[in-house]
Amino acid sequence: MKGYGMVKVEETGWLEKPKPAAGPLDAIVKPTLVAPCSSDTHVLHGGAGPKENLILGHEAVGIIDSVGDAVKNFKKGDKVVVPCVTPDWLSTGVQNFKTFSHDAYLMSSFKFLGSKDGTLAEFFHVNQADANLVKMPEGISGEAALMTTDMMSTGFHAAELAEVEYGDSVLVIGIGPVGLMAVAAANLKGAGHIIAVGTRPICIEIARQYGAQDFISYKEGDIAEQVMGLTKGRGVDCTIIAGGGGESLSTAIMATRAAGIIASVNFFDISDKLIIPTLAWGLGMSHKDIRCGFCPGGAERIRRMLELIIHNRVDPAKLVTHRFYSFDKIPEAFKLMDTKAPDLIKPVIYLDREEP
Amino acid sequence: MKGYGMVKVEETGWLEKPKPAAGPLDAIVKPTLVAPCSSDTHVLHGGAGPKENLILGHEAVGIIDSVGDAVKNFKKGDKVVVPCVTPDWLSTGVQNFKTFSHDAYLMSSFKFLGSKDGTLAEFFHVNQADANLVKMPEGISGEAALMTTDMMSTGFHAAELAEVEYGDSVLVIGIGPVGLMAVAAANLKGAGHIIAVGTRPICIEIARQYGAQDFISYKEGDIAEQVMGLTKGRGVDCTIIAGGGGESLSTAIMATRAAGIIASVNFFDISDKLIIPTLAWGLGMSHKDIRCGFCPGGAERIRRMLELIIHNRVDPAKLVTHRFYSFDKIPEAFKLMDTKAPDLIKPVIYLDREEP
Amino acid sequence: MKGYGMVKVEETGWLEKPKPAAGPLDAIVKPTLVAPCSSDTHVLHGGAGPKENLILGHEAVGIIDSVGDAVKNFKKGDKVVVPCVTPDWLSTGVQNFKTFSHDAYLMSSFKFLGSKDGTLAEFFHVNQADANLVKMPEGISGEAALMTTDMMSTGFHAAELAEVEYGDSVLVIGIGPVGLMAVAAANLKGAGHIIAVGTRPICIEIARQYGAQDFISYKEGDIAEQVMGLTKGRGVDCTIIAGGGGESLSTAIMATRAAGIIASVNFFDISDKLIIPTLAWGLGMSHKDIRCGFCPGGAERIRRMLELIIHNRVDPAKLVTHRFYSFDKIPEAFKLMDTKAPDLIKPVIYLDREEP
Amino acid sequence: MKGYGMVKVEETGWLEKPKPAAGPLDAIVKPTLVAPCSSDTHVLHGGAGPKENLILGHEAVGIIDSVGDAVKNFKKGDKVVVPCVTPDWLSTGVQNFKTFSHDAYLMSSFKFLGSKDGTLAEFFHVNQADANLVKMPEGISGEAALMTTDMMSTGFHAAELAEVEYGDSVLVIGIGPVGLMAVAAANLKGAGHIIAVGTRPICIEIARQYGAQDFISYKEGDIAEQVMGLTKGRGVDCTIIAGGGGESLSTAIMATRAAGIIASVNFFDISDKLIIPTLAWGLGMSHKDIRCGFCPGGAERIRRMLELIIHNRVDPAKLVTHRFYSFDKIPEAFKLMDTKAPDLIKPVIYLDREEP
Repeated sequence: MKGYGMVKVEETGWLEKPKPAAGPLDAIVKPTLVAPCSSDTHVLHGGAGPKENLILGHEAVGIIDSVGDAVKNFKKGDKVVVPCVTPDWLSTGVQNFKTFSHDAYLMSSFKFLGSKDGTLAEFFHVNQADANLVKMPEGISGEAALMTTDMMSTGFHAAELAEVEYGDSVLVIGIGPVGLMAVAAANLKGAGHIIAVGTRPICIEIARQYGAQDFISYKEGDIAEQVMGLTKGRGVDCTIIAGGGGESLSTAIMATRAAGIIASVNFFDISDKLIIPTLAWGLGMSHKDIRCGFCPGGAERIRRMLELIIHNRVDPAKLVTHRFYSFDKIPEAFKLMDTKAPDLIKPVIYLDREEP
Repeated sequence: MKGYGMVKVEETGWLEKPKPAAGPLDAIVKPTLVAPCSSDTHVLHGGAGPKENLILGHEAVGIIDSVGDAVKNFKKGDKVVVPCVTPDWLSTGVQNFKTFSHDAYLMSSFKFLGSKDGTLAEFFHVNQADANLVKMPEGISGEAALMTTDMMSTGFHAAELAEVEYGDSVLVIGIGPVGLMAVAAANLKGAGHIIAVGTRPICIEIARQYGAQDFISYKEGDIAEQVMGLTKGRGVDCTIIAGGGGESLSTAIMATRAAGIIASVNFFDISDKLIIPTLAWGLGMSHKDIRCGFCPGGAERIRRMLELIIHNRVDPAKLVTHRFYSFDKIPEAFKLMDTKAPDLIKPVIYLDREEP
Repeated sequence: MKGYGMVKVEETGWLEKPKPAAGPLDAIVKPTLVAPCSSDTHVLHGGAGPKENLILGHEAVGIIDSVGDAVKNFKKGDKVVVPCVTPDWLSTGVQNFKTFSHDAYLMSSFKFLGSKDGTLAEFFHVNQADANLVKMPEGISGEAALMTTDMMSTGFHAAELAEVEYGDSVLVIGIGPVGLMAVAAANLKGAGHIIAVGTRPICIEIARQYGAQDFISYKEGDIAEQVMGLTKGRGVDCTIIAGGGGESLSTAIMATRAAGIIASVNFFDISDKLIIPTLAWGLGMSHKDIRCGFCPGGAERIRRMLELIIHNRVDPAKLVTHRFYSFDKIPEAFKLMDTKAPDLIKPVIYLDREEP
Repeated sequence: MKGYGMVKVEETGWLEKPKPAAGPLDAIVKPTLVAPCSSDTHVLHGGAGPKENLILGHEAVGIIDSVGDAVKNFKKGDKVVVPCVTPDWLSTGVQNFKTFSHDAYLMSSFKFLGSKDGTLAEFFHVNQADANLVKMPEGISGEAALMTTDMMSTGFHAAELAEVEYGDSVLVIGIGPVGLMAVAAANLKGAGHIIAVGTRPICIEIARQYGAQDFISYKEGDIAEQVMGLTKGRGVDCTIIAGGGGESLSTAIMATRAAGIIASVNFFDISDKLIIPTLAWGLGMSHKDIRCGFCPGGAERIRRMLELIIHNRVDPAKLVTHRFYSFDKIPEAFKLMDTKAPDLIKPVIYLDREEP
């Protein structure tokens, strides 16, 4: 079987691998629509250590090729949406870690990339299919469904972590695909004023459609000062971090009011320095909560995201700016993701059809 | 000073009263736009016991006529929005009762109607002005602001009590003005499927605009059974009760899934029988929470509601179906509210201007 | 294999059954210490419908006899504590139902009695052993460990549902074994004044040791009135229902202050009438939450309970009033539970040793 | 009137001031039992900027000398316990800032030291007496009551912020008086294993009495590593920071498991560097919440603390290691606090009685 991924750190390529086999609880899925993600490129560049011979990709919708004997609710031929986080539900970790983001330990629930091959392949493996697959609902686009698997679930988790309440002012730092979803999520949780930090016109346009009203650029001075200007010196009620380096954390703490919440879903680099500005944190008296988190896992999470699409609450397919057709175009799409073209938000690859 | 209200139970009329005076912390407000509410008619009909010589009304925006010596943030001439619930913030009760809905004891925070004259008058009194008044924001309509004072704040509280989460299916029983606001609130908290119970075409039309997709009528059979039909036998994740008699509670419990939440902001009548259906409550094992509550009080609550209007998240002015002009039209508007015309959601009275 | 249970409703007896076999994820356990519970007798008397040929019992500690191929963390010979609630962690229900009390649907996580034979047997079956078994910790008594499996976990859940906060006054209605554990749980969650409703001297004595200070008897008049007397007319901050019929719910609502919480872990009978007293519920304005729930399931829950014992926070073995030795004494112990002798709280049966 | 405090930064002395007068809502209290606190010495040393001519002290019980006209529930001669945090309840800030720790802005609720003279005087002023004073309960010691006003309320807030759950392992960094109260609070919230970081024998002895089982010293190596050793590599479920410099934050994050909570009530110095260790925070994926907070304000908070004493849940008077008698001994006690003698936890000064 063919798959696309990393030969080793910093080297991409086609990989030839045996077709995966389903254990009793598992499924093998043939992807039909996939998307590369900046986490894939992050791993490629060594962000997860010296991995090699690994098929990349963790976002996919597809068709079930086979299921294990003990799978009850899925069968060959079912169209499915595949969560990017697929916990081992038999690990006691899921009973303790909040939001089903982790299982045995931190991020061990992230099986794709983490402990097995990913989705940019002819076939891929899904553990515990009954708990980790969702049937593709009728009447929604594959692109919208695909965007739920990571971008939307992660972006919406940011607004959950931030505990956005009715009328809250919300700052969203970073309006790549996850940040854009966080804007939509804040809006759908009852935010009042939404301020976004970002500069790319395409992202600003989509952020506006998702509910952001004001935009701040690093180029125009200190972010926190600009926030104070927009909030009459009050600071925002909560800040979501969905991009940037370590400085975004300090900015967030300075821009948020006392008793507000800072929620990060940003994947920081090991080299990022994360500093809490002592005075802005009220010398530890400010009740400013600093939270972070990883995409919640499992079928129900994605089912909920899909419900929002089915009922026209949000259209995550707005994230898709580039479309590729056929398996052969994976490298091209991947490269686009890696180089982050100015007009790119999210590329998708239709594996099952020709260019229309 | 002239005011409109109840001479005694079941008898309305104009009342002549001394103009109220402001204590050191208080304000006197001259209303410019008011609305009668079904709580006013409920009190008129004896729902709060044998009250007499009481000016009715608790929804108003207006202009400050005078303030007490110790008021810091308001002055004569300020345009203000007046919360219908104005707690005594010096009562220790506010430190204990959730959501600032109560102060010394249950509903004692409801000063209008509860312990003093209401807003359908030339002037009315507001206790603790700094904590219980909000400046009228620029750029929004008086009608929208007026609707925040009770209808929106109460309806939104229902969705807060119900802890609506992303993708939840939500049943709203009763789509009068509070129920309609609850629909909008569920939508703005991330509900997926919203089902409303109601029959009046005007209400159904507005509910649809606020985000409800399906409608159920008592006339077409058992409500809970219809809900099961619409949810594939699963029941809804949460139910909001914003109307109906005691039977609405039983219906809600039967229509809601295990571990779901039933949240009522309905003012039940003392004669209503509130029965928990034992089996539908899982013999006490179901984790179905039954909650109820009263409109949260104070300035910040209304400021948050206004933020949602300022940022175009919701337009509560859609509730306004009838408009009256001049002080003299109060009785006519009041009567309309009392008789609940089929095409009525909410009437308002402009006290400060002529019919346009 | 021999087991003790119900031949049919109202008829107990020894049952001869094939020894259960472990599926790939499961374990077969040989019990060494068991306890009958009032839920067992409830099922015997038809409380769960017309069951027959069913081995009863759902509380046990024991030794693993065999495990399935896919079990990772347990092996033959391991001493284990067995949660009475053992969810199917691959059901998507566990991702939605709070507290892991349910899986596919309401109480379907209660496999013993619910969908298979119980623990009063030579061997019994445990589904998904890795997620549903806990190794017996060193240094604590078997009796204490046994009490965690249902009594303690359920009683502690009551205090969780009640969200007891520092200094809260707490009323506990019913001081059988679960109610007694709820007293200890309220104490360990920071309750101030704990008032218990009960009359049996042995229960009052243990309740006092667990932290209750005042006791109320049905025999001395209306419970709610007595509570008002003890709380200077204020009502308690929260009420836990751990016994009684339908009237205990009404009592709880009347005895609890506005914005307080009523939490029930009582297994009501289908014939119990559960009525919310309309006025005491503030006509739906009181913010009195009415909650109910079933024992949380899984290994981590019991591990946490065991942690409290290991660190000497509570000794649930105080519940054990009667001890029996040898398999043959099961019927005698069961009958004692069924008839609820005045000096009984909880009987246990040592299956693995002689009378000391 | 005489008071003791700071002439200027680093210079203590007796100050002569006019006796304060009560506004309409306020009270003047004659203290009978007071305690200096490390916050007082912190201010003395310039921690709150260049203050001068300021009476220090913010912990007191006393007798009301006079009340304003609008005070309803207190009168001259009442014995009262005085919260160290006394918010302006008419500020809209209290409606927004969690836990009533702040009012108009961060810590502006801390009137003593913050915006007026403190309690180490013949008389002191209390704003909004009805909301900010508590009657001294009968049957408890003055020392216990005094300890609630800051040490206990702050220490208990730490356990609230940490959301300690049944069976949690809890690390408490720093076992001065607040840390010791945090140990007691963790115990009273259902912690299992409690580990404390500290070295002074008197503190270790009291921590043990309050429920800590294991003790870690900076002198014996890296704290986080020692915690890993005590928890089998798992880390604690939550960490409370009640002492130390900036390094305590990094330690806490490293010592806490994924999805755990770090809660600080430590008053950091402006020079402390607060660094989140990027890898230990899971590169932002760990769900480790970092929280901080200031003592909650108002009467109800202290009433709840007193309830715990009345019902024998905890005895905060164990903190008192040194007792002084008469007003003249204030400087001596203050100096002891400032120099932190090895056998000191908390000194108190009886202003109203002779050495026994």
